[in-house]
Parts: sequence; C-alpha cells; structure tokens
Amino acid sequence: MIKAGLKIVPEYWDEGLECISPVQMLEVRTLKMQKHLRYAYRNSAFYKKCFDEAGLRPEEIRNLEDYFQHVPFLKHKQMIENQNARPPFGDFLCVDIKDIRRIYSSPGPLMMPFSKSDMDAYINATANGLYICGARRGDIVDVTHAYQWDLGGTMVDDGFRRLGCAVIPGGPGMSRTHIHIMKHLGVTVIFAFPSFAIKLAETAKGMGINPRKDLNVRLIIIKGEEIYGENDKDILAEEFGAEVREMYGGAETGFVAAECPYGGGLHCFTDSIVEIIDPFTGQASAEGEGGEIVTTDLSRTAMPVIRYRTGDLIERLDVEPCPCGRTSPRIKRIVGRIGDIVRVKGVYLIPDTVKQIIRTHDSLGKFQIVIGHSEGRENLLIKVELSDPKNNQGIEQLLIDDLRAVMRLKAKIDLLPFGSIGQDAPIVIDKRIH
Amino acid sequence: MIKAGLKIVPEYWDEGLECISPVQMLEVRTLKMQKHLRYAYRNSAFYKKCFDEAGLRPEEIRNLEDYFQHVPFLKHKQMIENQNARPPFGDFLCVDIKDIRRIYSSPGPLMMPFSKSDMDAYINATANGLYICGARRGDIVDVTHAYQWDLGGTMVDDGFRRLGCAVIPGGPGMSRTHIHIMKHLGVTVIFAFPSFAIKLAETAKGMGINPRKDLNVRLIIIKGEEIYGENDKDILAEEFGAEVREMYGGAETGFVAAECPYGGGLHCFTDSIVEIIDPFTGQASAEGEGGEIVTTDLSRTAMPVIRYRTGDLIERLDVEPCPCGRTSPRIKRIVGRIGDIVRVKGVYLIPDTVKQIIRTHDSLGKFQIVIGHSEGRENLLIKVELSDPKNNQGIEQLLIDDLRAVMRLKAKIDLLPFGSIGQDAPIVIDKRIH
Repeated sequence: MIKAGLKIVPEYWDEGLECISPVQMLEVRTLKMQKHLRYAYRNSAFYKKCFDEAGLRPEEIRNLEDYFQHVPFLKHKQMIENQNARPPFGDFLCVDIKDIRRIYSSPGPLMMPFSKSDMDAYINATANGLYICGARRGDIVDVTHAYQWDLGGTMVDDGFRRLGCAVIPGGPGMSRTHIHIMKHLGVTVIFAFPSFAIKLAETAKGMGINPRKDLNVRLIIIKGEEIYGENDKDILAEEFGAEVREMYGGAETGFVAAECPYGGGLHCFTDSIVEIIDPFTGQASAEGEGGEIVTTDLSRTAMPVIRYRTGDLIERLDVEPCPCGRTSPRIKRIVGRIGDIVRVKGVYLIPDTVKQIIRTHDSLGKFQIVIGHSEGRENLLIKVELSDPKNNQGIEQLLIDDLRAVMRLKAKIDLLPFGSIGQDAPIVIDKRIH
Repeated sequence: MIKAGLKIVPEYWDEGLECISPVQMLEVRTLKMQKHLRYAYRNSAFYKKCFDEAGLRPEEIRNLEDYFQHVPFLKHKQMIENQNARPPFGDFLCVDIKDIRRIYSSPGPLMMPFSKSDMDAYINATANGLYICGARRGDIVDVTHAYQWDLGGTMVDDGFRRLGCAVIPGGPGMSRTHIHIMKHLGVTVIFAFPSFAIKLAETAKGMGINPRKDLNVRLIIIKGEEIYGENDKDILAEEFGAEVREMYGGAETGFVAAECPYGGGLHCFTDSIVEIIDPFTGQASAEGEGGEIVTTDLSRTAMPVIRYRTGDLIERLDVEPCPCGRTSPRIKRIVGRIGDIVRVKGVYLIPDTVKQIIRTHDSLGKFQIVIGHSEGRENLLIKVELSDPKNNQGIEQLLIDDLRAVMRLKAKIDLLPFGSIGQDAPIVIDKRIH
C-alpha cells in the first residue's frame, strides 16, 4: 500500500533538462546547434548550397548570436519547390531510406521523413509535453486527432504510450461513438482541437449525458487551431469539469511547447531553438514583443529543418521564472497566421487584436475588417454585429477609442444587426488589392 | 560495400520458431498453453467462473488433447455481455490499468485492452507476418487501413516500423491522394483490403497513371475481406505488376497467419493455437476438412482470449511441409462467415462452394441460393445468370452434376438473363424460416 498523499509520480519528465539553469542551457544549446549545423552542411545538399550562397561555413557560427544573425531562414515554399524539383525529398535527405520509419505528408506535397532516432526523439519530446500538460501513466486517453498523412494523431498516440497511458485511437469525427466509449471506459484525458472538444460536450448533452457529472474526464489537452476563441478553454473547463492545457506544434516542427498546470503560457522544449522575429523585417523581435515563431529542431537527422519560419504569430515569449520550476521561456498565445496580418497606414494590424477588443463588449457579435483607399489615402472600416441596435449606448465611440488606444489606428465603425456577417465570411477584406 | 548477390537479409524473422520441428513445437505450445490457462484462471474472474462451471482446473489440462476436449469455447456475444454488465472490461482484465497501453473497441461495444507486453508481442507477431509476406527493411509502405478504434491500421503501422520500413499512415479513402503520394515517394509496398487496392488501380488509371509502369509497387499485402473475389489476387498482381500476399486476423485475435512467397496458404503464427471445428457440433474437424477457426493467443496478458470462436470458415488447414521451410500449418482460403452457412437436407452448404463451381463456367454470372420446402421435404434451387440463354449447351445438367459431386446435394437450376439478380440481392434466401 502506498501512503495517502505520498507523491509517487515525479514532477518532471526529465528534471535535468526541464529545470536546467539558463547558463547551462545556453552551453548545451550552443554545442547542439553547432553540431547540428555541421551535420546538415555535410549531409544535405540543400543546406550546403544554402550556406555556400550565404558565404557561410558552419564552423563560423560560434554562438547563438552568430546563429541568429547569419543562418538563413527556411520557408515552407522553399521546401515544397525543392522536393517537387527532385522527388521525393529534394536535397534534404541526410540518411539512407533504410533508416526511415515514418513519412508524413502535407499538401504541396511536403514530405517529412523521420528516421528511427528522429522518431525516438519526437516521441520522447511529445511524451514530455503531454507530461507537462498533466497526463500521467494510468490515464485512459482518447486521441481525437486525425491519424492520416499528418504528424498529429500517430505522434500523439506514440507519445501517450511512451508516457504509460492507455490510448484509444479514436481519431476525428464520430462524436457519438467518442462519447459512448468515454462513458464506457471512464476516459480521463482527451486530446483534441478546441472546436472538436466543444462539439463533444454538445454531443454528450444531446445524448442526455452530462459531461461534467457522467464522464470522468479530468484533463483536456488541446492543440490550438490557428486562432480559437479566447473563452474556449474556460468553456471546456466548465463543461467537462476538467483542466485544459495546450500544446503547440506543426507538421514541419513537431511539438515544440506545452503548457504546465500554472497555465501561464507554453514551455518551449529544450531540444528546439525557438525565436520570435518581425515577420516583415526578419529581425529579432524586442524582448517581450510579439512576432513570428521560427524554430530549429536540434534532434532531426533524416531531414533537418533549420530556422523554419512557421508563419504562426504569438503575443510574446515570457522569460520570467515559472512557479512550476521549469526554466524554459513560455509562448504566450498564438494570435494568428502571417497571412492574416495586414499593414494599414504604416501599422501592422492583427485581426486577433480587433477580436480581443470586440469581445470585451457583450452586445457585439461577429466582425469584419475592411481596408479601402480613397483620395490617395488608406482607410479602415470595422463592420461589427450588435445585438440590440436601438440600445447603441455610445458603443461606436467606445470601439473607436479602444481601437485607437490598442492599435494606434483610427477606424470607422459600421454597426449591423446580428446575422449580417456570414459564418464563413472572410475576416479581412483588403480592397486595395483590387 | 556489400558484394552483389550477397544475401544480407535473413530468410526468416525468427528462424528458431518459424522452422521449429513439430515435436519441439508441441512441447513449447503445451507448456505455454498450460502456463496461460493457469494465468487466466488465477487473474481473471471470467475464466475462473468459466472453468469452475465446467468442473475443470487448469492443472488438469496436461496436453493439447485435454485442451481440445475440455477447455470451454469463448464467443463474441459472451464477451460483449460480460463487459456491458460490468464496464469497462467485465471480468476479463488481468492487469492494472497502469499496464494498459492501447484500448481497441469494436461495435458492441467490445473493448480490447493491450498491456505493454501484449503490444510488444503483437507488434512482433505482426512484423513477423509482414516479413513472411515479403516486406523488408527499406520498403516504403502505404498503410491504407483505418487507424480509428479498431486494431487494423495502428497495429500494422507498428509492425512495419518494427520491421524497419518507412511507413506512410495513409488510412482509408482519399484514393487520389494515395496515388499522388505513391508516385511521389516511390511506394514499394501497399497494405490494403483487396477491394481498396483494386480501387487504387482504377483511380490511378483515371489519373492517367499506369500502376504497372508509373508506380513502383512490388508487393501488396491484403487482409482479406470476408470473401473476396477468387481472382482478386491475380487482378491486383497484373494491375500493379506486384506480388500479392495475404494476412489473416481480426480485432479479437490480432493477426494469426500470413502467406509466404510460395503462396500455398497462410502460415499460422507460433504463439497462437489455431484449430478447426465443425461450427455446428463444436467437434474438431477431421484432418484436411474445413470448418470454423478457433484461436487462443498464448501471449495475451491484459485480457486473455481463450478458444475464441472467430466465426470465420476456412477450406482446410494444410499440414504438408512448405517449400519455404516454415513448419507451421497453413490456412487455405477463408470461405465465409458462420452466418452464411445453411443446413439443407442434412448437409452444410457454404455459399462459397457454390460460387467456386459457378465460376468455372465463363458464361455464368451472379447467383442466388433459394432453400424451400414442399410436401414436407426440403429443396434447393440455384438461380444463376447466363450470358447467352440460347446457347445453353447443356450447362444446366453440368451444374447439377458439379453441385452433386462437390456438395453431395441435388439442386434445381434456374437459368436467368444477365442483370436478373441485383448487386445487393442476398446470396441465400431461406424460405423455411418464414
């Protein structure tokens, strides 16, 4: 018998790495980075060419400052063009096909080969992330991500098993089947997109099952969709009576960050270099400022992905110490994708910022950003649904003031009845393009 | 450098077990069987009750004869009833939930928990089967089975990776995407249902891609649907210019047999006991006779499945030595499911037998078996489509003679024009039931 209250599960998956001192981390990372650049240069024709064209030799990159200044970025489009020119893997592949264990593919097509050691490193990193989120050996887990083509489902499945969980490979869709099985098995952890987790709660209620009382879910781990509703986590926590934690990653990067029980952002994993850049200039964002996430996975052997521009925009990286004891910086909120940003009157406008402001007013609904130009000048119009147009209460002026304060932009406001903006209507209409 | 022609891949996955002498096999299996029965009796309330009710103690089962005579059968329905009465695993579970790594579920619901050691044994057995079929390290494999809920896709994926293949978790559907990726990656092995593999060939041709010339597929491993067309293997081999091999298994049993390059049936794996019984009497079928497959997996620790009646009917077990050197008996053709058999005039009629006879005549099409009774006697009518009714050429009498010779049944024949029998028409109409 184990004494009540005795902590039998260690707090960390890999305490040495998760709680490493920043000074030590810098040393470890610098060495790994140097080794990785040399490996890529020696084994991949792509990186050799890339570095040679930049007049750079890996030996010259002595520290992270050099790395941030000189190593070329890698864009999604470059990878696809290179692979399509020389299928299947372009000039990227660094190992023999006999050492490949999985090949993921995303539209393009973009092929992502993983060697045995890559799989091992990724499964370990994924398990580590799920552990940070709070999953533990003995949990019964329903994985609702797709298992087809893409990295998501199978990698999470492998990660949970590495952790010692009992995994149900449920996959997407079939929400009634999910609910039946959650109830029958007493599922304790769900891995899902936020929208699908909310759908599961609705499905349960439609079946006369109270997700909070009749199900046994204690933890929901979400992988954020590009932008999910600000309140989605609270809604889910309330509906299921469960904790809600988040992981971040993509097909090209694997998982790179996970949220600890303190909920103050997503801890970056130690085997990746995560940086935040200004997506327009490519320069490092100032400390505490937002921008685009750029990653290098230092464990990747089959197809190194170095200084990959994810296209994901975050609010900022938090480098303050976390009460959980982990020392890595935390990603605060994903706020959008590169394609969503527009430049208006010399200022970058991120739709999510507008959304945050509108969400503070209960009476407002969906919105749309229209950028136009007249008489040689750009103008900004925000269309937004209002629940009770007769009861305007000066909301128009409030919005104008809020938008000016936060975005430093003057906008016109067009208040419309609820239902005026379609569910699938584009969030940004840029009339300057036509 | 490796010398040309030097065999670098061993012929067997586990030569010691695959080529074991029948005498040694009997010893190994007897010991494993005894150990497994004692384990199940001691750890599972279900088997304790089952054995106790049969007045049996595991210690009394000293050899396989005892086992075949005394150990109770397990039916699908029993498992579901027991689990539904005491969810989630009924009285079956023998291990702590912390030792479970996967839970598969099929409609019922029927839950199949696998422990870490079960997973390991199953992945190894699956890898062994895929190896027998001819898959090798370095193959690029497209797994087209579903990864959701059921054992199929994820287990095959694990098995191929264990073998050292590069796995694409393609899953079912999206046949155009499969073809695109097969072409781009130079896929060498496909794992598929026969019908889906045929669909892939058709899809390719529709896209202007010749599966034989433009794709690189050298091996197709099929998991037979209940009854697939007799010529499906030949069609597939011809369409893709590839070898076609088969594996047998199910959600409850895992994979239990695989076909070697000699193509003379599916070698049973050594860690299962496979028997053939008369589905009506439960007695062992005579050597060389067909019947229902009953299996016991001797490696299963989380939920032992002992003397499980699969409901699958086979032509026979072939115990003749195989030129490949493997010593285990081979399953010859799955010919149907229990529900398909009917008893007419005291004889068991398997629709597939009728199909085999009709297929020998090129001019014949779809058929239907009608069982009726008049004047207190049962009668059998075979309706069958004929391409050219004017050119009967005594086919009616030929059919009557063939059916009598093979089935020991006298049937009336009703020859109909092509298209008379609908695609979804039932194969058997039993008028005695009404």
